[in-house]
Amino acid sequence: MMRPRNDTLLRALSREPTEHVPIWLMRQAGRYLPEYNATRARAGSFMQLCQDPALATEVTLQPLARFPLDAAILFSDILTIPDAMGLGLSFVEGEGPRFARPLSDEAAVGRLAVPDLARLAYVFDAVSAIKRALDGSVPLLGFAGSPFTLACYMIEGCGSADFSRVRRLLYARPDLLHRILAINAEAVAAYLAEQVRHGADAVMIFDTWGGLLSAGAYAAFSLAYIERVLQRLRAAGSPAPTIVFTKGGGQWLERIAGCGCSAIGLDWMTDLAGARARVGARVALQGNLDPQVLLSTPAAIEAEARAILEAAGPEPGFIFNLGHGIVPETPPEHVATLVGCVHALSDVRSSRKQTSVEGKSPRTRVEPRSSGT
Amino acid sequence: MMRPRNDTLLRALSREPTEHVPIWLMRQAGRYLPEYNATRARAGSFMQLCQDPALATEVTLQPLARFPLDAAILFSDILTIPDAMGLGLSFVEGEGPRFARPLSDEAAVGRLAVPDLARLAYVFDAVSAIKRALDGSVPLLGFAGSPFTLACYMIEGCGSADFSRVRRLLYARPDLLHRILAINAEAVAAYLAEQVRHGADAVMIFDTWGGLLSAGAYAAFSLAYIERVLQRLRAAGSPAPTIVFTKGGGQWLERIAGCGCSAIGLDWMTDLAGARARVGARVALQGNLDPQVLLSTPAAIEAEARAILEAAGPEPGFIFNLGHGIVPETPPEHVATLVGCVHALSDVRSSRKQTSVEGKSPRTRVEPRSSGT
Repeated sequence: MMRPRNDTLLRALSREPTEHVPIWLMRQAGRYLPEYNATRARAGSFMQLCQDPALATEVTLQPLARFPLDAAILFSDILTIPDAMGLGLSFVEGEGPRFARPLSDEAAVGRLAVPDLARLAYVFDAVSAIKRALDGSVPLLGFAGSPFTLACYMIEGCGSADFSRVRRLLYARPDLLHRILAINAEAVAAYLAEQVRHGADAVMIFDTWGGLLSAGAYAAFSLAYIERVLQRLRAAGSPAPTIVFTKGGGQWLERIAGCGCSAIGLDWMTDLAGARARVGARVALQGNLDPQVLLSTPAAIEAEARAILEAAGPEPGFIFNLGHGIVPETPPEHVATLVGCVHALSDVRSSRKQTSVEGKSPRTRVEPRSSGT
Repeated sequence: MMRPRNDTLLRALSREPTEHVPIWLMRQAGRYLPEYNATRARAGSFMQLCQDPALATEVTLQPLARFPLDAAILFSDILTIPDAMGLGLSFVEGEGPRFARPLSDEAAVGRLAVPDLARLAYVFDAVSAIKRALDGSVPLLGFAGSPFTLACYMIEGCGSADFSRVRRLLYARPDLLHRILAINAEAVAAYLAEQVRHGADAVMIFDTWGGLLSAGAYAAFSLAYIERVLQRLRAAGSPAPTIVFTKGGGQWLERIAGCGCSAIGLDWMTDLAGARARVGARVALQGNLDPQVLLSTPAAIEAEARAILEAAGPEPGFIFNLGHGIVPETPPEHVATLVGCVHALSDVRSSRKQTSVEGKSPRTRVEPRSSGT
C-alpha cells in the first residue's frame, strides 16, 4: 500500500512521533456544511447519497477542501450491513434510521445470515473512488458499526435512548443475541477487509451503544465480538491499523486495550490523562473534545483544545478528535479554529514553553495551513 | 431520632454489619403497580399527586405492602424546587416534565433566587405523614435532584437525550451556569434539611445527568455543588446519612467518595467489585442491577442478584438496589422474586457455601417474609 504524503495519522496509530498531532473529526462530512446539504438535496434521500459512489466521494472530500484535516473518512452509514441482510433500511427525516423488517421474533433471528458482499459493492466502489480522488494526500479511514451496536438497531428497529428491548433479550434469551452477534461479527469482518482491499488505510469500529451494558455484559456481548472481528481481519491479511470506539466505555479501557486494536477512541466524558495512565503504551488514543465546545467561542475552543493536548502528554500515539460526532449547528469557522489550534499548539517546531496550558507565555499564533489535498 | 425497627438500611449506610443485605428500589412506588395507577388516576395530574400529602403517603406505602422492602422513599419529583422558583412545572403525558418559563436568557438567570420553603410545604407535610404511617417500621428516605441535574431541566426546559444547551452554556458562559448552580445548591441544602427535620432518616441526591459532562466539568459543575449541599446540610445539624448517585459517574468514584457522602449509588454499567476495590471502606455502596433484568425470567433475576451479592463481597456497607429506576413494564411478581432472593441469599443465618455463586450446592429456599409495615 502506498503511504499518503501526510501520514501523521498512520504514524500516530503506530505510536511513532509526528511533527504535529493529527486531527480529524467524527462526522466531519455532514450537515454543519452548507455544501454537504446542497449535495444531500441533489441526492434525494440519505441512502441514495450513501449508495452513489460519486456523491459519496464528493461529500467525503468537502471538509478536506475547507480544513487541513489529517484524514478523510468514508462517507457512509453503520447500518449498511443490516440493510444488506434484508432488514430494509430507511431514514425518516428528523427521526433517524428505521428498519422495515427488524428482528422481532425467533424465526427472524433464525433466518438471519451473513450478507453477500456484492450487495455492498456501492460502499467498496466509494472507497475506490475516494482513494483515487485523495491522490495520496491523506489517509482514508474505513469504518463499520460494532456487532453489538448493529444488533441494537436490528432488534429495536430504530434508534432508542436506552435500547431496552436489546437488554431484555440479553437477560431472557442470551442464546438468540449471541446468534445475531456471531453473524454480525462475520459480516463486519468481511466488510472491513473489503474496504481495506479497496484502499482504506485504517478502519474504525463504532460501538455507539456498548456503554449501555453492565461491565460483564459488555465484555461478553460487545467486546468479545469486536475482538472476533479484529482476529478475522488479521487472518484475512489486513495490514490496516484499527480504532475501537465504545461510547460510554471509559470504565473498561484496560479491557478494550487488550482486544487487539491499534487505538481506542475516547468519548468526552473520559479523563484523557487518566486513560493514558491506565492503558500505558499498549495502544494509541483518539479523542476527546466535547462536540458542544464547537458551539461556544474561539477562546473557549482554544482553551479546551490546549487542555486536551496537555492531557494527552508528549508521548507519541495521540490523534485529536471529538468525543462524539460533530453536531449540525456547528459553525464551520469554529472547526477551522479548532484544526488550526491543534496543529499550531502541537507543532514540534514551536517550543513547549510557548504552548504551556498556563497561558502566561505569549500565545502561539495560529497560521492558516494548506489542506494538503 | 427514633431508630426504625428494621434499621438494616441505616446500619449499612454506616458500614455496620446487618443480618441481611437491605434492599429498596428506585421508583419502587410507580407505574408498574396497578394500585399506583389507580391512585394516580384519582389524583388527576402527576403534580396533584405529588402535592397532596395523603395521596403521596398512599403511593409511598404501596410497594411496602406488597414486598418486604427495607426502606420507604418519599414519593415526589426532583423538579419541585425549580417549580417553587417560579419556572412553572407540568408533566405532559408520555413526554415527561416541561417548564413554562425555563431559564432562556441572561435576564431570567439574573432573576433566579432561592425559593421560599413555604412553597414546598406540601413536600414536608408528605414526609411527616409518611413518617407517621410507617410507625417506626422501616427508614424513610428523602431526596432531591443535584444542583447540576436541576439546572439541566431549568435551562433546557424539558428532558433531553444530551442536554446540549446546558453543555453549550457551560463552555460559552460558565459564569451564568455557576450562578444557577450556587442558587440551586442553597435551595437543595435547605430543602433536604427540612425533609430531615420532618422525619427523613437518610437523604439521596440524584445526579441523573452529571454523567454527560467531561471529567473536569463534572468536578467543577456537578460534584463541587453536591459537596456544597452536603456541607450546608451538616452545618444545619442534619444527622441523616447521605447517598450520592451520578448516573454515568462510574469513572469518577474515587472523587465522589471524597465529597462527604455516606454512600455512592452505582448505575448498572459500573463494575461493583471494581467499585469496592477503588473506594475501599470510605463509603457504603448501593446498586446496581440493570432494571431490564426484572423484565426477564425468575431464573435470570436470581442469577443476576446472586452475581451482584458476590461482587459486593462479605464486608458490611452494601445496599441492594437497581442501577436506575424500575421500568413501568416490570411485572410486580418479579420484584417479589428479587426482594426474596436478595434477602435469602444474603441472610447471615444461612451458610456462605449454600449461597455460592457457582450454584452447585442446593439452592437456598426463598421464603416469603413479612413486610414489617
